[in-house]
Amino acid sequence: MLLPNIKHPDQIKKLSVGELADLAGEIRQFLIEKLSVTGGHLASNLGVVELTLALHYCFESPRDKMIYDVGHQAYVHKILTGRMDQFDTLRKHKGLCGFVKRAESEHDVWEAGHSSTSLSAAMGMALARDLKGENNRVIAMIGDGALTGGMAFEALNHIGHEKKKLMVVLNDNEMSIAPNVGAMHNYLSKIRSDRHYLRAKDEVESLLKKIPAIGDKLAKTAERMKDSLKYMMVPGVLFEELGFTYLGPVDGHDLSKLIDTLRQADNVDGPVLIHAVTTKGKGYRPAESDSHKWHGISPYKIESGQVLKAVGNPMYTEIFGQTLVELGEQDKRIVAVTPAMPGGSGLIPFSEKFPERMIDVGIAEQHAATMCAALAMEGMKPVYAVYSTFMQRAYDQIVHDICRHNANVMFAIDRAGFVGPDGETHQGVYDIAFMRHIPNIVLMMPKDENELRHMMKTALEYNDGPIAYRYPRINVAGVTMDKELVPIPIGKWEMVRSGEGCAILAMGPMVQLAEEAADMLKREGIQVQIVNARFLKPLDEEMLSKLAASGTAMVVLEEASQAGSLGSAVLEFFAAQGTHNAVVSLMGIEDRFIEHGSIKEQRTEVGLTTEAVCAEIRGLISSSSTSAGKRSFSS
Amino acid sequence: MLLPNIKHPDQIKKLSVGELADLAGEIRQFLIEKLSVTGGHLASNLGVVELTLALHYCFESPRDKMIYDVGHQAYVHKILTGRMDQFDTLRKHKGLCGFVKRAESEHDVWEAGHSSTSLSAAMGMALARDLKGENNRVIAMIGDGALTGGMAFEALNHIGHEKKKLMVVLNDNEMSIAPNVGAMHNYLSKIRSDRHYLRAKDEVESLLKKIPAIGDKLAKTAERMKDSLKYMMVPGVLFEELGFTYLGPVDGHDLSKLIDTLRQADNVDGPVLIHAVTTKGKGYRPAESDSHKWHGISPYKIESGQVLKAVGNPMYTEIFGQTLVELGEQDKRIVAVTPAMPGGSGLIPFSEKFPERMIDVGIAEQHAATMCAALAMEGMKPVYAVYSTFMQRAYDQIVHDICRHNANVMFAIDRAGFVGPDGETHQGVYDIAFMRHIPNIVLMMPKDENELRHMMKTALEYNDGPIAYRYPRINVAGVTMDKELVPIPIGKWEMVRSGEGCAILAMGPMVQLAEEAADMLKREGIQVQIVNARFLKPLDEEMLSKLAASGTAMVVLEEASQAGSLGSAVLEFFAAQGTHNAVVSLMGIEDRFIEHGSIKEQRTEVGLTTEAVCAEIRGLISSSSTSAGKRSFSS
Repeated sequence: MLLPNIKHPDQIKKLSVGELADLAGEIRQFLIEKLSVTGGHLASNLGVVELTLALHYCFESPRDKMIYDVGHQAYVHKILTGRMDQFDTLRKHKGLCGFVKRAESEHDVWEAGHSSTSLSAAMGMALARDLKGENNRVIAMIGDGALTGGMAFEALNHIGHEKKKLMVVLNDNEMSIAPNVGAMHNYLSKIRSDRHYLRAKDEVESLLKKIPAIGDKLAKTAERMKDSLKYMMVPGVLFEELGFTYLGPVDGHDLSKLIDTLRQADNVDGPVLIHAVTTKGKGYRPAESDSHKWHGISPYKIESGQVLKAVGNPMYTEIFGQTLVELGEQDKRIVAVTPAMPGGSGLIPFSEKFPERMIDVGIAEQHAATMCAALAMEGMKPVYAVYSTFMQRAYDQIVHDICRHNANVMFAIDRAGFVGPDGETHQGVYDIAFMRHIPNIVLMMPKDENELRHMMKTALEYNDGPIAYRYPRINVAGVTMDKELVPIPIGKWEMVRSGEGCAILAMGPMVQLAEEAADMLKREGIQVQIVNARFLKPLDEEMLSKLAASGTAMVVLEEASQAGSLGSAVLEFFAAQGTHNAVVSLMGIEDRFIEHGSIKEQRTEVGLTTEAVCAEIRGLISSSSTSAGKRSFSS
Repeated sequence: MLLPNIKHPDQIKKLSVGELADLAGEIRQFLIEKLSVTGGHLASNLGVVELTLALHYCFESPRDKMIYDVGHQAYVHKILTGRMDQFDTLRKHKGLCGFVKRAESEHDVWEAGHSSTSLSAAMGMALARDLKGENNRVIAMIGDGALTGGMAFEALNHIGHEKKKLMVVLNDNEMSIAPNVGAMHNYLSKIRSDRHYLRAKDEVESLLKKIPAIGDKLAKTAERMKDSLKYMMVPGVLFEELGFTYLGPVDGHDLSKLIDTLRQADNVDGPVLIHAVTTKGKGYRPAESDSHKWHGISPYKIESGQVLKAVGNPMYTEIFGQTLVELGEQDKRIVAVTPAMPGGSGLIPFSEKFPERMIDVGIAEQHAATMCAALAMEGMKPVYAVYSTFMQRAYDQIVHDICRHNANVMFAIDRAGFVGPDGETHQGVYDIAFMRHIPNIVLMMPKDENELRHMMKTALEYNDGPIAYRYPRINVAGVTMDKELVPIPIGKWEMVRSGEGCAILAMGPMVQLAEEAADMLKREGIQVQIVNARFLKPLDEEMLSKLAASGTAMVVLEEASQAGSLGSAVLEFFAAQGTHNAVVSLMGIEDRFIEHGSIKEQRTEVGLTTEAVCAEIRGLISSSSTSAGKRSFSS
C-alpha cells in the first residue's frame, strides 16, 4: 500500500510510473469505499485520478498554482495534499468541503462551485506572476462542459491574445453533468473520433514531398498549402486559431503519456491547451455505465452499486417536473429551457414527452435568459428552469432583456434557500435580493407542493410580464393535492392562522417553521397569527396596512439574505406609506457566507429555528407591554 | 433626392443598385447633418449604411426579424422605417430613442443597449418560428467587438449545435468602441488580410489534380487532405467548426456584393455567418480618421469636424483617471482592468504611463471580475473600472469569485445614477441594490471630486476585502482639492450641516441637492441637518442611532433604485436594532425603467428635485407636530 504514506504531493515524485499506476488504483479504491458511506461527487473524481497524479508528479504545488474548475473534482488533489484522514466528514457540517477550499490547505489556491471560472483565475495569476517577476507555473483544469460557459470563452479570447505562459488541461469526459450539448462538444467529439489525426502528421510530410515541382505561379500557393495541411493535421485548430498551442488528444488514464504531454506542454512559451480524454466513473463499473446518476451520489452499496435512498416524500423538483408535463399537455406554447441541468431540474419527464419543446443550452445561463425573452416576445411561454445560485449568472439578462422588455418569461427557481452539503457556493439565498428591485417582475414562493402547482398555473395564465416561482431543495410535506389548478390572485397573501398581537410573515418552508413556533407559543398562552407571504413582489399591501393599523407586531421569517429580501420590502412599503410606527422584526440570513452542512444545521447556524422564532416573539410582546405604546429605543 | 420619399423599407426594393448607392450617399449626408446638431452615435451608423440598405433590400421587415446588437447602430434602420422626421429629437426627453425601441415601430423587434445579446435573441426567435410552423427569416447584425462577449459565444455554441436556419451578419469594423482586443480579433484580422483566401479555391483544385496517383496506403490520407485543404481555403474555419456556414469576407460598402452574399446566405439551410468588413465613420473624413472619438459624439461643425464642447468642469471620470495615475506612481501593485472601455473610463492617462499594468479584456465583464479576484489573491491591487450598468454582467462573479474569496479588489463604478441620453438600458441605478446584500464588500460614494480622491486612497489602503467607490456621469462641482490624500474611516458618515428635527441622509450628488433644499427651507425658518451618507455599506450605525435617539426624522435621498438601496439599508438597520419608532422617509427611484433625456429631466421625472425634498420635509415636520409623539397611520 502506497497511499497511507502520502502526506504531501512531493512524495509521489519519487515513484516510478508503475508505482503511480498502483497508487491510482489505491486512490480509486479509497474513493469508492469512502463515498459509499458519505456520498459525494464520485464519477468526476474517478475520472481525474491519473490526471491529478500526473499534475502533482510533474509540477510543484503550492508554488505552481493548480486551479480546478468547479472544484468538485478535487478529491484526488485533497488526498495527495494530506487530507485523506478527513474523508469521513466529507460535505458534512464543519467537515471536509466538497469543493476546493483555501482555508483547508495551502495547495488549494482557487475556490469555485460555479463552473467556467478557472481560465480567468489562471489569467489573473499569470498576470500577477509576470508583474511580480516570478516564474511559477499556472495550470487550470477544466471540463468540456465548463468550457462552453461564456466566461470561459471570454478568458480564452483574452489569454490567446496576451500570450501569457499558462497551461489549460481540458478534461474531456464527453459529458458534463448532463450530456453535453453545443457546437464545441461536437467539435471535441470530432477530434476524439478522428483517429487519423494521431497518425497523419508523418504521412502528410511524405505526401507533400511527392508533389512535383511546379511553376512559379503556384509555388506560393503550394507553400501556403503545406502550412495549411500541417495545421489541419494538428487537431484543435479552433484553439490554435484562438492563440493556444494545442496538444492532444491524449488518453487521460495513461500515466506515462500524460506525463510526457505535460512535460512537452511545460516547454511551450505561451498558452497551451492539453486535451485529455477521460472516462467519468473510471474503474467503478456502476459509475462508468451511468455517469450522470453517479455525478453526485448518495451513499451506496459498493458491490451492487445500489443507492441507499432515504425513504421519504418526493422533492419539490419532482413535483415541478410532473406538473410541467401536465401543463405542457394543455398548452403547446410552453417551452422548457435549462442551462445543462435537465436531470437536476426535474425536466426529464418533460423532455421525454415533448422533446421538441425541451431546450438544453449547455452551461449558458446568460444565453438561456435572453433566448427566453425572445421566445416570449414571439408568443411562446418559456419556463427558465434554473437553480437560484446559477441564476446569478443571468442577472444582467434578467434586467436588460427580460424585465426591460417586460417579456412573459416564467422562472422556475429551484434550490431556493439553503442547499445543504454543496455549501456556500451554492446557497440560493440572494435571488430575492437581486431580483426584487427589477421593475416588472412578479416573485412567488409556495408554502407547500400543492401551492407550487397552483403557482405554476398562476404563472402560465399571467400575461403581463416576467413571473417567477422559487422552491427549496427539500422533500415536500406530503399535503393533499388539489385536482384542479387555480391561479392565485397576484399579490394576495394567505392568512393561515389567526391570532392577536403578533404576526409571523413567513415565506415558503418557513411557514412550517412558523406553525411549529406558533404551536409552542400556544402552549404558553400566546396566540400568534401566521401569514403565508407567498408573493415577494408585489406585496399584499392591503394585508400589511391592516396589520399595521391594528398595531400588530410583525416578524418577517425568511430563508434568504436579510439584506434586500422580503423583510426589506415590507419595511420599504411602510416607509413609503408614511407608516412609521409599524413594528417589524426581521429574521433572515445574516450578512455572511454559510458553509456546507445539512439544511437543518445551516438554519440553526443563522437562527432560523422554532426556538428562535418563539424567543423573538416573546421579546416583541414583552417590549410592547412594558413600553405601552411608547416604544423604547434599544440600540 | 430619393430619401425624402422613403417611408417604408418596401420602397427601396424597387430601386436599382445604382439608386441604392445614391440613397446611401443621401443617408450619410442626412446623418452627418442631423447629428452635427443633436450628437449621437455617428461613426457606427455611417459604417452600416450599405449593410442596412442591403438587408432591407433583400428581406422583408417586419415579417423577417432584424435584430441589431447593442442597437446604437440602427439609425439607418430608423430612417428606412419612417422615422426620418424625428431625428431632431434624437436622444432627447420623449424624443427618438438612440437605440432600437419596440414602442417606436413594428420594425424594431429587439431592444438592446448592452452588447452581445443579438445571437441569443435570434436563436429564440428562430426556435419560436419553427415551433409555430412559420417561415420568416431571422437576421442578427453583430459587431466584431460584441462577438467577444461571453454570452455571444454561448449562443454561437447553441446555434451551431441546433442548426436552426438563421443569419448572423458580422459587421467587422476592426474595432468596437475601443480598439478591439482578443484572439477573436486577431483571427478576424488574419482573414481580412489574407487575401489569398479569396483567390485560392480554384488554384487549390488545380493543384490537387497534379498530385500523382499514389498507392493504397496513402489514398485515404490524400482524400482527407483534399477535404482539409478545401476546408482551409474557406476562411472562417473557426465558425465552420462551430457549425456555421461562413460566407465572406465581403466588402461591407459594396452594395452589389452585399446583396449577392445575402441572397446566397438565404439559400443556406442552417445557420450562416456573413462576414462583412466595414469602415466605421465611412464617408465622413473626421469620423473615419478617429472613429473612437466619433463613436458617440457631441454636436460638431460639419466642415471642420470640430466638436462643440460645452465649457465646464471636468467629468468625475477624468478626476478618477488622473488620480489613478498618481496612485499608480506610488503603488506598483495597482493594475487597471477595463472591459473594453479604456477611453470611457478615463484610463488613457494610466495606460500611457503604465502600459504593462493596464489590462483591457474586451467586452468581457465576467472574465474581468474573476481575473481581478485572482490578481488580488496574488498580491496585486486590481482596480476594476466599469460602468454601473455593465457591471450587472458580473454579478455572479462579484458574489462567487470576489466577495466569497474576500479578495482585495477595488471597484471604480462609473456612470452611477442617471446617465442621460443613453436612457433606460444604461441607467446606473441598481448597483447598490445588487451589491449591498453581498457579504464582505464595502460600498462608497463621494459627495464631490475631492472626496472621490480620498476614497480612492481609502480603497487602496483597505486590505480586508473588496471595496467599491461609485461616481456619477456629471461634471464635478469644482471644489478645492486637498493636496494630501487621507483614508476615510470605513463606515463613517459626515455631518455636513447641522440643524434640528429633520435630517437628510444624502448620497453622492444628492448632497448638493440637499444643500439647495436646505437653503430653501432655511428661508422658511426650517433648519435641517444634512448627512453625507458616503458609506452605503457598512452604514454609520453610531450616527443613525444618535439621530433616532434624538427623535430626528430622516429623509434618505438617493439617485438609485428605492428598492434595495441605501434607504432600505437604513430601515433594515433600525429593524435589526429594534428601533421601531424611527421616522425614515425614502426618496429614491421608483420601480420602473426611466427613459432617455437629460439627467436633470430624469431626476425631475422621479421627483429628485429641491422642491420635492422641501415638500417631503415640510410634510414630515407637519405630521410630527400634529401627531405629537403618537404618529398617525396614513395608508
